[in-house]
Amino acid sequence: MAPKYAPSLRSRLAPLLLFLQTGFIIISAFFFEIENNINLKKDYFINVYPAFQDVNVMVILGFGFFSTFLVRYGLSSSGFNLLVAAMATQWAIILNGIESCYTRGKIKVDLKSILVAEMCAASALIAIGPMQGKSSPVQLILVALMEVSGFILSEWLLRVLLEVRPLSSIMLLHIFGAFFGLTLTWILYRKGSNQGFEKEKVDKKSGLFSMLGTVFIWMFWPTFNSVLVDERYPGRKLEAVCSTYLALAVSAVTAAALSVFSSPRGKLNLIQIQSCILAGGVAVGVPISVVHHPWEAMAIGFTAAIISTIGFKYLKIHMLLAFECHDTCAVLSTHGLPGLLGWLAHFLLQMKDYSDHTLAVRFAMFHICTLCIIISVSLSMGILTGLLLKWNFWRPPQNNKCFDDQAYWVFPNLAVRK
Amino acid sequence: MAPKYAPSLRSRLAPLLLFLQTGFIIISAFFFEIENNINLKKDYFINVYPAFQDVNVMVILGFGFFSTFLVRYGLSSSGFNLLVAAMATQWAIILNGIESCYTRGKIKVDLKSILVAEMCAASALIAIGPMQGKSSPVQLILVALMEVSGFILSEWLLRVLLEVRPLSSIMLLHIFGAFFGLTLTWILYRKGSNQGFEKEKVDKKSGLFSMLGTVFIWMFWPTFNSVLVDERYPGRKLEAVCSTYLALAVSAVTAAALSVFSSPRGKLNLIQIQSCILAGGVAVGVPISVVHHPWEAMAIGFTAAIISTIGFKYLKIHMLLAFECHDTCAVLSTHGLPGLLGWLAHFLLQMKDYSDHTLAVRFAMFHICTLCIIISVSLSMGILTGLLLKWNFWRPPQNNKCFDDQAYWVFPNLAVRK
Amino acid sequence: MAPKYAPSLRSRLAPLLLFLQTGFIIISAFFFEIENNINLKKDYFINVYPAFQDVNVMVILGFGFFSTFLVRYGLSSSGFNLLVAAMATQWAIILNGIESCYTRGKIKVDLKSILVAEMCAASALIAIGPMQGKSSPVQLILVALMEVSGFILSEWLLRVLLEVRPLSSIMLLHIFGAFFGLTLTWILYRKGSNQGFEKEKVDKKSGLFSMLGTVFIWMFWPTFNSVLVDERYPGRKLEAVCSTYLALAVSAVTAAALSVFSSPRGKLNLIQIQSCILAGGVAVGVPISVVHHPWEAMAIGFTAAIISTIGFKYLKIHMLLAFECHDTCAVLSTHGLPGLLGWLAHFLLQMKDYSDHTLAVRFAMFHICTLCIIISVSLSMGILTGLLLKWNFWRPPQNNKCFDDQAYWVFPNLAVRK
Repeated sequence: MAPKYAPSLRSRLAPLLLFLQTGFIIISAFFFEIENNINLKKDYFINVYPAFQDVNVMVILGFGFFSTFLVRYGLSSSGFNLLVAAMATQWAIILNGIESCYTRGKIKVDLKSILVAEMCAASALIAIGPMQGKSSPVQLILVALMEVSGFILSEWLLRVLLEVRPLSSIMLLHIFGAFFGLTLTWILYRKGSNQGFEKEKVDKKSGLFSMLGTVFIWMFWPTFNSVLVDERYPGRKLEAVCSTYLALAVSAVTAAALSVFSSPRGKLNLIQIQSCILAGGVAVGVPISVVHHPWEAMAIGFTAAIISTIGFKYLKIHMLLAFECHDTCAVLSTHGLPGLLGWLAHFLLQMKDYSDHTLAVRFAMFHICTLCIIISVSLSMGILTGLLLKWNFWRPPQNNKCFDDQAYWVFPNLAVRK
Repeated sequence: MAPKYAPSLRSRLAPLLLFLQTGFIIISAFFFEIENNINLKKDYFINVYPAFQDVNVMVILGFGFFSTFLVRYGLSSSGFNLLVAAMATQWAIILNGIESCYTRGKIKVDLKSILVAEMCAASALIAIGPMQGKSSPVQLILVALMEVSGFILSEWLLRVLLEVRPLSSIMLLHIFGAFFGLTLTWILYRKGSNQGFEKEKVDKKSGLFSMLGTVFIWMFWPTFNSVLVDERYPGRKLEAVCSTYLALAVSAVTAAALSVFSSPRGKLNLIQIQSCILAGGVAVGVPISVVHHPWEAMAIGFTAAIISTIGFKYLKIHMLLAFECHDTCAVLSTHGLPGLLGWLAHFLLQMKDYSDHTLAVRFAMFHICTLCIIISVSLSMGILTGLLLKWNFWRPPQNNKCFDDQAYWVFPNLAVRK
Repeated sequence: MAPKYAPSLRSRLAPLLLFLQTGFIIISAFFFEIENNINLKKDYFINVYPAFQDVNVMVILGFGFFSTFLVRYGLSSSGFNLLVAAMATQWAIILNGIESCYTRGKIKVDLKSILVAEMCAASALIAIGPMQGKSSPVQLILVALMEVSGFILSEWLLRVLLEVRPLSSIMLLHIFGAFFGLTLTWILYRKGSNQGFEKEKVDKKSGLFSMLGTVFIWMFWPTFNSVLVDERYPGRKLEAVCSTYLALAVSAVTAAALSVFSSPRGKLNLIQIQSCILAGGVAVGVPISVVHHPWEAMAIGFTAAIISTIGFKYLKIHMLLAFECHDTCAVLSTHGLPGLLGWLAHFLLQMKDYSDHTLAVRFAMFHICTLCIIISVSLSMGILTGLLLKWNFWRPPQNNKCFDDQAYWVFPNLAVRK
């Protein structure tokens, strides 16, 4: 039987996509400009392109396959991820270019601007994590657009109010995305979620697909954390790469140990491990510019895996039962808590270096304000988006159609006359 | 029960492969030479190697897993793809080197020559697309060798007759491959194809594998379109990368919208989307040297997705019923039509720049001749190859063994005494 | 029913991992130092980083998914691979740094040192190949640590006793890993192995996953063989890349042909092909510094595929029945025999160049001693490790729990109250 809400994609998703896409093309016709000056330094391309592709693989493939563990939702999670990433990247290029549009009349498109846009898209992909399976693709697109707008707004606020460097502010994408997504899923809480959804299950084959996505994110994370470090300082780039690598290795080992410890029958839990091995990369990414010693990175990775495991094992269910907040992809423990830990590590590592008391207090104020701005923009935009999405016009799937590819994908027998 | 035709691999495939492979080794012993001069510019390696690996991933992994959507044909499509690619690349290195062999007595092997050979192999992999599932591996190998020969012939004709630059002519590989493959499948039409094959089916897990392949092709397409742009002009290389990226993003969004529109129940169609999101990359690749504005790339991506969707939805079945041409991998809508669109876009973008009427007419003649040569060589080589393959000596699978791994692969229980 | 030995992970694996990991962090706090001098050549990062990522993909993803062909052991093979790689890399960084620790007081961590450590980890991953499915993760971790220690010891012996360059000695990792693993599995032989394990089976879907891993190893092998060639000689780096590429292409074609020949019903055998297409890369890697002509590489690839096929088809079962040595991942035919072939090829290619008889004899002695040292350290460390692992304290799985994810992984129905 056809699901009751299936036709909604036709009257909602298709016009929305076409409208937005033609809009983007029109904007590009008036304002986009590919940076193509002959004086472009020859090294620029060689320097940035391989890193750009690594990030591309993380965002499109890694995030896309990360949530394929849901046994009947694999196509949706990888397909919608591609769709959302393609929309969010275009939108982020436009928003990031507004400022240069005022001053120069044109939005510059080059590898760096696409790269930064993809990182904003990554933040949107984190935000849709807790919504996966319970939202229609129309809702996911809207979330992504709102999230990218909010994130770029918060970056702009940080830059204007506190003069935070872009390199530091963009690394807050994990915190922003996670809290945005959690606010959303809290507002859009469905009755019956606390008994679990009928189709929210894992099996081994879908587990292998999500292993694949996780491994891609894990492998290319050193690029993600180092790509925006200025290439005039290869030493600092190297530092970022080595720190991230070590933090990830440590958190992979620790996550496995803790997963065994926290399981009643002493077994490994696939989804938990997948969340927690990535925690090291998140946590070390936030303070990447002040991590100078390998042991700092390794200690951050170790702590991140512990916090992430606790988050997955105890907070996730607590969030659901106490706060009515159903977090499909465990975004709180994968990105939220490790992001906060990274913020704290940044704080401690920086404080340690100050001998002057006044400077230390000033830095503390500055650092706390940064977090407050990020979180308050994240929560308020999340609430705004949540209220928008509560409108029944967007036709979310019914509970029994949640986590089910059948609601959105047709599987034709390719044979012709049948 | 063992399929009737299974033994054919032993008496046909194995000797053919060994014969060709020893032949290639003997040729290499006399003529190959690795470019190894000490004056080699240091940057050369850094510039080309990451791009080389991206193309390698597209050709081996991307194309290999693209057609794993066929539920019982996954091993064959990925395995035969590797085999065909390995053969076709070696053959293309030899053919591409014939000219330098005359002048210098040696065939130069370096990253660029392997790269160009892999792109010729990509054209052969496109050509076997419509034949997938209905041909024995022996036939696929023969098709690949003939196709590569034909493509290199047509490139040579274009260079000698019309002085087309290699950069422009190699991008016609999509058009050449697609029409070659379609001619073949038209000649090798089997009775009963119009009722569909028993095993030509998709399911979700195999859909995820082909999603993986598609995503790899999608991600690395900017490299494919930019790799042959001279690295002395990093600005133009950058232009090619950004244009391709934008065209792909637009065609991904548009393809999803149109898939919902064209489906009777308003759902997404996986195979259709996989074909159409790649259309943007094909279409923008052909005129890549004249696309200078982002909106041009985005408009090409948009149109490509529309044309490709129409091709998939309406032409594919029309081709089968009216022209008896069964196109397994929808090569017409993925590569053929977008390739033609790219040719047209090249025409329009170039014409726009001419103020002089005579020059414009000359360019128009030149551009139309280019297409005519490509298509006529493609069709005639396709017919030739088709007639060769009609010979029953090659033992194609019976209809009920089509699209079935069982016909070619043995699945041993690895346990020893059983 | 819960497997009898399942709780062992809790009391063995978790404490071991936490103990080792905190140990590594403490060592890093005292001795690690990220190389971060401002005089660092700007090109260094661009040169090494893409290659580093390729090797990373091979080690983590390639090796991880290579052995997912076991139908009920996919999660374990990819998950334990990640765990073992993360441990072994850290351990190898420490061991490789001991020497500089004596002289400079610090262990340098940079891309090169992580890269070399990952290659040592690759050697450990080869060594656990024959043990896969029959050992608990605790055992695998111990094997990896012992193997890495042994390999680095043998490298040190080669350098000190025979002045073998690191570039040549590290390529012996295939031989070392293979014989280490085979010794182990011979010592740990279980009664009943010769009748085959109940769950040691392949199916098509798991075959596709291992195809994916194989293809990644295949594609990035040119990087693996060329990465340690000094980047001041881009010509030699290019030579290494082209030679490896050609050898792999040839061995892919030859492996397919021989698989058909050696199968009673003339079909392709997936696992056999996966082993044998990689043989070319192994065999050409060992003598990579003396292969200067393409035909030499191609001939090595051809011979490697033949030897590897014979090894897989006839030696594997012989090893089991005659020597009681059960080799799960066919490491003998994938790495062992091709490695020896590479050693022999090195010998012949070098001997050919000597006109002076005395020099030739000296080289022959030197080359034979190299092999003897590698193999004797490998065998003795293998025996030592085997005896350590025979201790029942490590709780290996029972025969009927072998090759089964259920013994180590919990599959929670993600739904909450159930």
